Amino acid sequence: MKTIKSLQEKRNTAILLIFCPDKQGILSTVTEFLNKNNGNIIYLDQHVDREEKIFYMRVEWELEGFAIPSDKIGEYFETLIGSKLQMNWKLYFSDNTPKMALFVSKMPHCLFDILARYTAGEWDVEIPIIISNHEKLKPVAERFGIDFFYFPITKENKADQELKEIKLLKEKKIDFIVLARYMQILSEEFVALFPNKIINIHHSFLPAFAGAKPYHAAHERGVKIIGASSHYVTSDLDAGPIIEQDVTRCSHIDTVQKLIRKGRDLEKFVLSNAVYKHLQRKVLVFNNRTVVFN
Amino acid sequence: MKTIKSLQEKRNTAILLIFCPDKQGILSTVTEFLNKNNGNIIYLDQHVDREEKIFYMRVEWELEGFAIPSDKIGEYFETLIGSKLQMNWKLYFSDNTPKMALFVSKMPHCLFDILARYTAGEWDVEIPIIISNHEKLKPVAERFGIDFFYFPITKENKADQELKEIKLLKEKKIDFIVLARYMQILSEEFVALFPNKIINIHHSFLPAFAGAKPYHAAHERGVKIIGASSHYVTSDLDAGPIIEQDVTRCSHIDTVQKLIRKGRDLEKFVLSNAVYKHLQRKVLVFNNRTVVFN
Amino acid sequence: MKTIKSLQEKRNTAILLIFCPDKQGILSTVTEFLNKNNGNIIYLDQHVDREEKIFYMRVEWELEGFAIPSDKIGEYFETLIGSKLQMNWKLYFSDNTPKMALFVSKMPHCLFDILARYTAGEWDVEIPIIISNHEKLKPVAERFGIDFFYFPITKENKADQELKEIKLLKEKKIDFIVLARYMQILSEEFVALFPNKIINIHHSFLPAFAGAKPYHAAHERGVKIIGASSHYVTSDLDAGPIIEQDVTRCSHIDTVQKLIRKGRDLEKFVLSNAVYKHLQRKVLVFNNRTVVFN
Amino acid sequence: MKTIKSLQEKRNTAILLIFCPDKQGILSTVTEFLNKNNGNIIYLDQHVDREEKIFYMRVEWELEGFAIPSDKIGEYFETLIGSKLQMNWKLYFSDNTPKMALFVSKMPHCLFDILARYTAGEWDVEIPIIISNHEKLKPVAERFGIDFFYFPITKENKADQELKEIKLLKEKKIDFIVLARYMQILSEEFVALFPNKIINIHHSFLPAFAGAKPYHAAHERGVKIIGASSHYVTSDLDAGPIIEQDVTRCSHIDTVQKLIRKGRDLEKFVLSNAVYKHLQRKVLVFNNRTVVFN
Repeated sequence: MKTIKSLQEKRNTAILLIFCPDKQGILSTVTEFLNKNNGNIIYLDQHVDREEKIFYMRVEWELEGFAIPSDKIGEYFETLIGSKLQMNWKLYFSDNTPKMALFVSKMPHCLFDILARYTAGEWDVEIPIIISNHEKLKPVAERFGIDFFYFPITKENKADQELKEIKLLKEKKIDFIVLARYMQILSEEFVALFPNKIINIHHSFLPAFAGAKPYHAAHERGVKIIGASSHYVTSDLDAGPIIEQDVTRCSHIDTVQKLIRKGRDLEKFVLSNAVYKHLQRKVLVFNNRTVVFN
Repeated sequence: MKTIKSLQEKRNTAILLIFCPDKQGILSTVTEFLNKNNGNIIYLDQHVDREEKIFYMRVEWELEGFAIPSDKIGEYFETLIGSKLQMNWKLYFSDNTPKMALFVSKMPHCLFDILARYTAGEWDVEIPIIISNHEKLKPVAERFGIDFFYFPITKENKADQELKEIKLLKEKKIDFIVLARYMQILSEEFVALFPNKIINIHHSFLPAFAGAKPYHAAHERGVKIIGASSHYVTSDLDAGPIIEQDVTRCSHIDTVQKLIRKGRDLEKFVLSNAVYKHLQRKVLVFNNRTVVFN
Repeated sequence: MKTIKSLQEKRNTAILLIFCPDKQGILSTVTEFLNKNNGNIIYLDQHVDREEKIFYMRVEWELEGFAIPSDKIGEYFETLIGSKLQMNWKLYFSDNTPKMALFVSKMPHCLFDILARYTAGEWDVEIPIIISNHEKLKPVAERFGIDFFYFPITKENKADQELKEIKLLKEKKIDFIVLARYMQILSEEFVALFPNKIINIHHSFLPAFAGAKPYHAAHERGVKIIGASSHYVTSDLDAGPIIEQDVTRCSHIDTVQKLIRKGRDLEKFVLSNAVYKHLQRKVLVFNNRTVVFN
Repeated sequence: MKTIKSLQEKRNTAILLIFCPDKQGILSTVTEFLNKNNGNIIYLDQHVDREEKIFYMRVEWELEGFAIPSDKIGEYFETLIGSKLQMNWKLYFSDNTPKMALFVSKMPHCLFDILARYTAGEWDVEIPIIISNHEKLKPVAERFGIDFFYFPITKENKADQELKEIKLLKEKKIDFIVLARYMQILSEEFVALFPNKIINIHHSFLPAFAGAKPYHAAHERGVKIIGASSHYVTSDLDAGPIIEQDVTRCSHIDTVQKLIRKGRDLEKFVLSNAVYKHLQRKVLVFNNRTVVFN
């Protein structure tokens, strides 16, 4: 089932994501560089964290008519600006569709939501593979025409299986990973290979109820609101930089089962929103916190 | 792709939905009737509209051990209670899975969301058919293994095509219809055959922006919040009883295209919630307003 | 500045709050008791916790024409129903205006919000006294014409001062206490005297960020939503039964100071809502969780 | 009752609010102008409406060390930049506290909320006068130490009374007006004198339920969410540019009276938020829509 039709207009643009120590004139330096080289800016957002004294910026401009060839932009920018201002920057081209791998276990709701958006052309992404530690969702992958790889995990084979997964991810040139309710903890070694490139959904309003069985814990505590949180995975469980959160009301009439049902909708919504922001290159990470541009 | 596994525990219960003129003792009359016949009540919610002086009730009880045979409950209830209290009541059995028809046009997001829930076993429903005035979403229906019927509509053939649709709906014993962004107005005659049995999603916060192009209108007006509304279809366009509404924030940075994107998520969420409430037999309609039990 | 005008219609009603082990027929037993004695029910809400097997109920009926004299209702109810069904019940009369004491420290926003509602007649309550461990808000109390008592607290004098506070609360016949950003921890002994009668506002989405400086902690963690929680005070800090919670979005642009500003509005809104629910006798506590009737 | 203590750090800054036809280089032109004259930018937000081709910007910088004297900034900016780029701009100085007049009728909740924030030092504003067409809220004004002016309005005296009000507003050097549930329609002539300087709160989610009795209309329509909207007043009733909106859930159990109660909290919250944004000079109006900077 190929994409019905892309809802994304393809644009021929470049995107710069920047952060660096704040000082006067960074913004005008960057915008002047683009203007002088005839780069028509179509998006600009910036933020200064005045406590940490860090300047953050996302700028996107049209490549058509831009004086610097695309394959030289990075070099020129680093030489003329980046190195002088100690910038940490990344350059993306909007015609370069990123490749995403999906990790799932048994619960299908996030998987379905992502594949529906993918098939409907809501996102500019390729999903070459789905990886799972269970076989249950294989039929879903098949019907959407996506290769499904089964890697059962035990304490004993975990290291080996992860090596195979990593090999596969490299072969397929995967850019980032989405854990769509994948109920296995990735090893530190695995995580270290994909810094800020593994997006997880945790079924609570973090930092409340980190770890296992958050809906049971929420019910036990008698909260009046439940939530879901999407974050980049770090070696510290459920403690990585948060990309997106959302909540919904609950009450004494909600059993754990009802919380789980309500939570499913939150989870898929929050995860898909986080993936969308990531795909748009609108997320920067510094100090275990995210800057998410508008 | 059959349902992965039902997430709904099958229960052998009966559900009564009641409304009637309010007076003292209705509640104890009904609960006594169930108690005396050994009906274990597992859900009870009631509401009195003190302005209109109407009593509303939803009660669900276990059939196992209930003294009155299932096929006699209606008769007994009407004779002993309903007729005396001028009740408007409906009786449902939870082991009777309702049949739903989906009407779609070109936009797939609501369709995907409903089929994903269906396939994942979130809902106790059967979806035998999808009807459309376009062929575009046929592939989606096929992959989910659901029969797709194409009824192109023109001004000239509308009456005829609707008759064919009605014939098909009867053949398939359809209980209710969900318009999942179906972009055709159903005729008064059609609507009259399915009173409070056609659920629509309108892509605005009704009554604001009824009619065509609500996102354009919302953008033009400069609202700071957009919404979606699910309602039963009546002959009065976008004016039927509202089942569910939800909203999300927007701002000056949101173009019409961005509002449409944000709205898609609202639409599918609101429509699916409304269908779920309907499936649970938790919606009553009186005076063009709904009572939606918890 | 006396109450401008009460917005509350005075009603001559009785309210029963009940919980007990669940079994068949409780609801009809209670409603029959009221009906047979000519008590016109104007509110009824009930809930069965099927896991804990507890029945909860709130019922309100008009005293005019009720066959049992008001001062005998409790005795009759206990004899005829309560004792047989092992009920834990409380009886309230709506013409009995409860007396509330406010505890404050230096921050005025919750205090102002409560006094504004009080003065505007939004609540059916009397506020005879404001108690504080600082003198800063004395002028506010004076302008609203409420007696202000200053009890500075040190480690050494805490036990003594609390005894004086308790004496004052008894003299003034205070029914319940609201801690409107009172920044002192009450002793276990103090708390034990007012079980489920001390309402606190904590400036986080509990159980996240319990304890001191929650906005700093929220900023440090990089959450995308902040909250406030109102709960009954128990001897376990910030761990009492939650009455009400609410949240608001934040982002990377929000400094700690901005979170504090946004949080102020949440705090006053959540605390006032919790107090309102308490005043309406709509909150029941069991197992460190609340049932909050609609 | 003077302000308890200002919660606003006083900053010695200048603020420029700009909009103009979009073209390349505006942003770098403005930031260069400030940088070259040693203006340390502490806030910058900009937006390009690509449909209307309008550039919007808010920039704030420290005056200390700025090369151009404060009283010359406007002239220099217009000469060197504004006139060349056909800019519509306004310059504000943060040490210039604006003067606000409050218009009220009989309902005190918005008035109390504003006066509480004012007294608590939440806002950098002066409120020299309260104007009303009723005497009811005079005691509130007195207790907060603010001059209260009573202008009863009849069809016959309306024009005259408005002239007196205008005279008073000029005498008191009022910068902008807040209608805190003022239940009189201002004449076109009055409104024309204060373009985008009169902030109103309407008790519905505009454009739904404009005009009188919105809660009655919302109840009648059976909506599941109610709202409030704050907007600048134009000669077109309830149709001016929206600054802020918010909503809350309701259901079949909410009578009109309960909607009014819930709505009060929305109204005061939304109005105060809109006033705060206005006070921060974060609102621009173009084409009957607002740009509200973050």
